[in-house]
Amino acid sequence: MNKALEGLVVLDLSQVYQGPYCTLLMAYHGAKVIKVESPKGDILRERHESKAPHEFVMFNTNKYGITLDLKSEDGKKAFLKLVETADILVENFTPGVMKRLGLDYDEVLKKRNPKLIYATATAYGLTGPYRDYPGMDLTVQAIGGVMSSTGYPDMPPVKAGPAVADLLGGTHLLAGIGLALYQRERTGAGQKVEVSMHDALYPTLASPLAALYDGDPDNYYERTGNKHSGLRAAPYNVYPAKDGFVAIICATERHWRLLVDILERPDLLEKEEFKNSISRAAHIDEVDQIVSEWTQDINKWEIVELLTGKGVPASPVLTIKEVANDKHLIEREMIVEIDHPARGKVKIPGSPIKLSKSDVDSYQPAPLLGQHNEEILGNSINKEGVRI
Amino acid sequence: MNKALEGLVVLDLSQVYQGPYCTLLMAYHGAKVIKVESPKGDILRERHESKAPHEFVMFNTNKYGITLDLKSEDGKKAFLKLVETADILVENFTPGVMKRLGLDYDEVLKKRNPKLIYATATAYGLTGPYRDYPGMDLTVQAIGGVMSSTGYPDMPPVKAGPAVADLLGGTHLLAGIGLALYQRERTGAGQKVEVSMHDALYPTLASPLAALYDGDPDNYYERTGNKHSGLRAAPYNVYPAKDGFVAIICATERHWRLLVDILERPDLLEKEEFKNSISRAAHIDEVDQIVSEWTQDINKWEIVELLTGKGVPASPVLTIKEVANDKHLIEREMIVEIDHPARGKVKIPGSPIKLSKSDVDSYQPAPLLGQHNEEILGNSINKEGVRI
Repeated sequence: MNKALEGLVVLDLSQVYQGPYCTLLMAYHGAKVIKVESPKGDILRERHESKAPHEFVMFNTNKYGITLDLKSEDGKKAFLKLVETADILVENFTPGVMKRLGLDYDEVLKKRNPKLIYATATAYGLTGPYRDYPGMDLTVQAIGGVMSSTGYPDMPPVKAGPAVADLLGGTHLLAGIGLALYQRERTGAGQKVEVSMHDALYPTLASPLAALYDGDPDNYYERTGNKHSGLRAAPYNVYPAKDGFVAIICATERHWRLLVDILERPDLLEKEEFKNSISRAAHIDEVDQIVSEWTQDINKWEIVELLTGKGVPASPVLTIKEVANDKHLIEREMIVEIDHPARGKVKIPGSPIKLSKSDVDSYQPAPLLGQHNEEILGNSINKEGVRI
Repeated sequence: MNKALEGLVVLDLSQVYQGPYCTLLMAYHGAKVIKVESPKGDILRERHESKAPHEFVMFNTNKYGITLDLKSEDGKKAFLKLVETADILVENFTPGVMKRLGLDYDEVLKKRNPKLIYATATAYGLTGPYRDYPGMDLTVQAIGGVMSSTGYPDMPPVKAGPAVADLLGGTHLLAGIGLALYQRERTGAGQKVEVSMHDALYPTLASPLAALYDGDPDNYYERTGNKHSGLRAAPYNVYPAKDGFVAIICATERHWRLLVDILERPDLLEKEEFKNSISRAAHIDEVDQIVSEWTQDINKWEIVELLTGKGVPASPVLTIKEVANDKHLIEREMIVEIDHPARGKVKIPGSPIKLSKSDVDSYQPAPLLGQHNEEILGNSINKEGVRI
């Protein structure tokens, strides 16, 4: 079967999560992705004695791996030769590094290959007052409003546990590359695609921003625990179950009537304070109390089956261990077990992008450091990636 | 200037956040996006008496707006006529709705227009055991592991405040559409692009999954507050400042030496328990205590300027109000003020995808309900979108 990006060559200078996630999805969808590491390797490799920590293995499947010392003349020469026939280059250095390496897009790379799509991922972007701040997922979550909107009003701000800044950045970068590829088909020319984690996070704040601009200034909280950001919906919360927690939302009046029916509490429909979403939102604590009293004696999956069976949005709060073995994610090929030469059995993610005409049909484990040096660079390059 | 998606027509049946964010970015990058609402309108409109709540205005800029009753024969006929010349269709109904409307991709739409790219966004996907669960951002965060990895070990799980499931879903959908557009250039044929929020969240769990698979089973926490997910780095936390909080990370030994220098504590370099990242991680609380004692008497921006000036990753925790007026986001055109006919001045997001050859050169406010009925559908359609 044809794959969407078949025939395209991607040079991947990126490290850690943001860039590598972008190129992972390109590799899954048919591009030949060549991960170019320094002789020391992606800094992520240091996190495990095998030089293949779990997160590295997750994000580098189906890539070729070569090593080049871009600070050496020979390494740079070999790299520029690869640039000449590449379609896409991805890097997530801090701003200015490529220029210092003598590999600036406008001054050097574009002249070598005008069709090249140059994709750069940063923490804060190539312009603006924060440009030169060194940044990572944690600092971007802090400055970008994720922390202020996460947690409880009477507690300090707290990060989102997952690497949402990194992954939103990487996904926007892939989307931008898709746009540039399509435009290249029309014009024949490449261009620069720029995405920052900080920019990519901003639109996720829609609900907290709506609470700020459209909400009640006397009842405004930056963070609301598991309640609705604007405190404008109830039931909308995470409730205790006998064996954990469940999330339940009544997004419509129909959901509320269905829930009341399941709770066998027709009397609630008669009460003035629960008669519509506005009045229920004004009595959130009472509503939550009623729901909690029912949920606390029942197991989480049982609650979820009861509610979703009737059409009420509900789900169990799964632990990370439960997610890691989730039958649904396994069936959706989002959790795939493969063999890795340095690790044995490892679980890697599939692609969340399901294309009806571009299947991911095989998984090759993340490369060892310099594994494909000879195949890609030829005999003139030794294991450290320096020309002999 | 040419725009990346100029000339493409997008039919947008999607509501709320996930689909509309995807089509927003397509509109910014040159596509003609026709938002097709039921005569009642996007359910988001109900959140504000103006029928243009802030979050609706954020995600529907630069789109045309028409109303059609897809349950009526005339509405369906008008819609199918639009399908014949469209390039892309985006919907985020629950699985099965399009089929019940008589608008199934395989059975109907593909036959009308084999070049059509059909993009479907769901909570849990079109396959798998959770397929038919009604779901929204909150329930997907619950079942997808975001909640379990967010918050403190001794506190219950808590959601990420921002709509990370919705926006990761929408961004993956855009990336998938980009891949399909490129493939269509090669093959001439459209295809189905499918993304679920649940799938899209899974790769964000890289650090909690690495802590599970590579970490110390005796020192394993599903959530670690603002500390490193695997408790394998220090300093790595959010620290109290005189006027708020700051995030600080020492990702390398160089960062640690620079920080010690700023703290004027050369004695720390001599201590066995702080000699490298492994030993510091084994003494996280002592390290955090030392950093906190220094930060607590200084204002957050002053700390950040001191640290980032030397190259140490640091950022202030900004409140939502501060983010809403962030000078960097304004300069990056991520916060843009425009006039909306029903609202007056509103702040909308720009595109996080910066393309050097495809500028966003103008912003048209989100459409009123049925605003472009006549322009798009002609005189035969009245204001309710039903053929006269």
